[in-house]
Amino acid sequence: MAVNLQVPQESKLSPVNGVDLGFAMAHIRKPNRKDVLIARICEGASVAGVFTQNRFCAAPVQVCQANLAKGKGIRALVVNTGCANAGTGERGLSDARQTTASVANLLAVDPEQVLVFSTGVILENLPMDRLLAGVDQAVSQLGQASWLDAAHAIMTTDTLPKARSRVAEVLGQPVTFTGVSKGAGMIRPNMATMLGFLATDASIAPKVLERWTKAIADASFNRITIDGDTSTNDSFIIIATGKQSAVAVETGDEPHAAAVFDALKATSIELAQAIVRDGEGATKFITVQVEQAASVDEAAKVAYAIAHSPLVKTAFFASDPNLGRILAAVGYAGIADLDQTRIQLYLGDVWVAKDGGRHPDYLEEQGQAVMNEAEITVRVQLGRGSEATTVWTTDLSHDYVSINADYRS
Amino acid sequence: MAVNLQVPQESKLSPVNGVDLGFAMAHIRKPNRKDVLIARICEGASVAGVFTQNRFCAAPVQVCQANLAKGKGIRALVVNTGCANAGTGERGLSDARQTTASVANLLAVDPEQVLVFSTGVILENLPMDRLLAGVDQAVSQLGQASWLDAAHAIMTTDTLPKARSRVAEVLGQPVTFTGVSKGAGMIRPNMATMLGFLATDASIAPKVLERWTKAIADASFNRITIDGDTSTNDSFIIIATGKQSAVAVETGDEPHAAAVFDALKATSIELAQAIVRDGEGATKFITVQVEQAASVDEAAKVAYAIAHSPLVKTAFFASDPNLGRILAAVGYAGIADLDQTRIQLYLGDVWVAKDGGRHPDYLEEQGQAVMNEAEITVRVQLGRGSEATTVWTTDLSHDYVSINADYRS
Repeated sequence: MAVNLQVPQESKLSPVNGVDLGFAMAHIRKPNRKDVLIARICEGASVAGVFTQNRFCAAPVQVCQANLAKGKGIRALVVNTGCANAGTGERGLSDARQTTASVANLLAVDPEQVLVFSTGVILENLPMDRLLAGVDQAVSQLGQASWLDAAHAIMTTDTLPKARSRVAEVLGQPVTFTGVSKGAGMIRPNMATMLGFLATDASIAPKVLERWTKAIADASFNRITIDGDTSTNDSFIIIATGKQSAVAVETGDEPHAAAVFDALKATSIELAQAIVRDGEGATKFITVQVEQAASVDEAAKVAYAIAHSPLVKTAFFASDPNLGRILAAVGYAGIADLDQTRIQLYLGDVWVAKDGGRHPDYLEEQGQAVMNEAEITVRVQLGRGSEATTVWTTDLSHDYVSINADYRS
Repeated sequence: MAVNLQVPQESKLSPVNGVDLGFAMAHIRKPNRKDVLIARICEGASVAGVFTQNRFCAAPVQVCQANLAKGKGIRALVVNTGCANAGTGERGLSDARQTTASVANLLAVDPEQVLVFSTGVILENLPMDRLLAGVDQAVSQLGQASWLDAAHAIMTTDTLPKARSRVAEVLGQPVTFTGVSKGAGMIRPNMATMLGFLATDASIAPKVLERWTKAIADASFNRITIDGDTSTNDSFIIIATGKQSAVAVETGDEPHAAAVFDALKATSIELAQAIVRDGEGATKFITVQVEQAASVDEAAKVAYAIAHSPLVKTAFFASDPNLGRILAAVGYAGIADLDQTRIQLYLGDVWVAKDGGRHPDYLEEQGQAVMNEAEITVRVQLGRGSEATTVWTTDLSHDYVSINADYRS
């Protein structure tokens, strides 16, 4: 069902010097699945992360935030699927800490230098015996797994693994950017998404990386939604190993910093869009652009109202140009002083609504032609200012209901 | 598909002295359907209304608000289905005014004494020739139609007509309360819902009725949601004809006022719940109670987050006690300082989550037993205060997708 998304080619995913990967099939929830991933990170790397704003944030998210705050330098990530370790109270925190302690022991680092991530069912406890056996196995294989393995090892209801890679020339040197993401449902990231990991061998000072990670999340993972459900476990991590020491960013103001930032951002947008393309039951990839807003926040409110409307989403699934539903969503987005007579609506290149009413020249056939496409852009102009934003989303199909009604995902 | 909802018995719907009804089959969108309703209201009646907060509010909503503000006394309502007259710009306003003028002319009243309501597809113009012919016909039949006819005449994607009636004894006199409602999709009323009309023969001063209508809407139509989509045309109207002159409410502080208010409110809650019971594709009727909140607003935020979550709703459709999804919704509801360790979650009478984690005694079979019911109560305690609210909603089923993907409703 994924929209224009294929399994990444392993040969096109460049390893990142300074990151070693290992996985295990630990039977956390289901047998014979890669469900534990370990990434060992070289000494001296910078690591920054952003996490879910869900107040029911999972135990591993709480441990990650605490460990990043300690500033001891992150030396490993450990990820499990099958169980989110969320809604698990004190026991959940203890399980997450036990996991980091186990990894730390095997790698001879401090437990506070390990970040832990879980994804899967909420309100269930981790099977610690199987998880710790998986950790042992994954550590013993460190360096043997590829980024494609990593993408596989973090999947839950995803139908396809998601990985992206690019090599950019900066200061005449090749710099690698490779990352993986996962997610298909419970997707309306708020600061980050349900697991995105991106690494580069550039050297980036921790303070800069922290700032950049927030900005990049806002332009990528924080601009996608599938069902409006913000996960308890969203996490997005950028690792800069510094192994390509010729390309160092100390302040972010260096002339070459922009090239590094842009490559990180472009890779992140592709990883975020891959989640939408693989959205549960998705048959369409929809870009919602809101322009002429008084603020970016206001543009985002309108874009998300459209992107979350079940009526808009089912109309896209049906390829039905029932476009009044989009205007209704604009109207209830929460802009109290919105003047409907200033609104323009475009579907693809077709001008559908002019000054708040049906454009006199608009023909249903024109809307139908755009609706038949697999990738569709909705563009709304609010006539209130010059700010804009873009959100990516999917339609709402029978398969979305089946996936979420028939499986305990 | 409706959940515990039947066609009302005509014999149990008491006429309200002072309101005469007439309908027509005007072929607004489809042939052979009751799609135009006229209610003539006696001189001296009080009429109050609340309307959608959608900023893309339809032309008829704008005309209603203007006419109510004039204070000339409302003498008639005219309703059409099949076309919402929303997203129709200046022409839409002109069409709405032409409709009120036509009714006014036929009834020999002022056009500003007529309220006009439309419901149906957005972004299309009214077929004025057929509508005005229907108005003629409906007026010619005034007094011959029943409240059940009225309920039929305002249906769109509703599978069943919705009407409720009660006779209460107040000051030893019988007082009648009869109303109709419609709506099945695009339901997340914000001030009122997509067409609710309630009449009583009690006498209620206009200022009191205005205040009561807001309070009653907040406790009934403003506490239901099917898909979170706030319509462009929501309208809720209460008519007090005063024909039962022995029961007069002048200030609202009279000892007998509470009985009148309570009957209006109880009837409104039943009419609002009927919309949820007939929600598009509904297989469950779900009551979401949020307690121990610091404010009613905060309780409502949490209740709506749960009620709108596609993941929660598909789990209910599947009768799957995947209850971590409810906790996730509580977490992203927008309470910044929520402490997850103070949250209690009950499904029916079963205590599922204690202090933010799975209750140690909770067994999946217990959750499953409640999930198998057609009417389910979710109760969340926030541990933050003593305010509470209740929202009624449905599950999200395959039929919801079919109804909204396969039909231009």
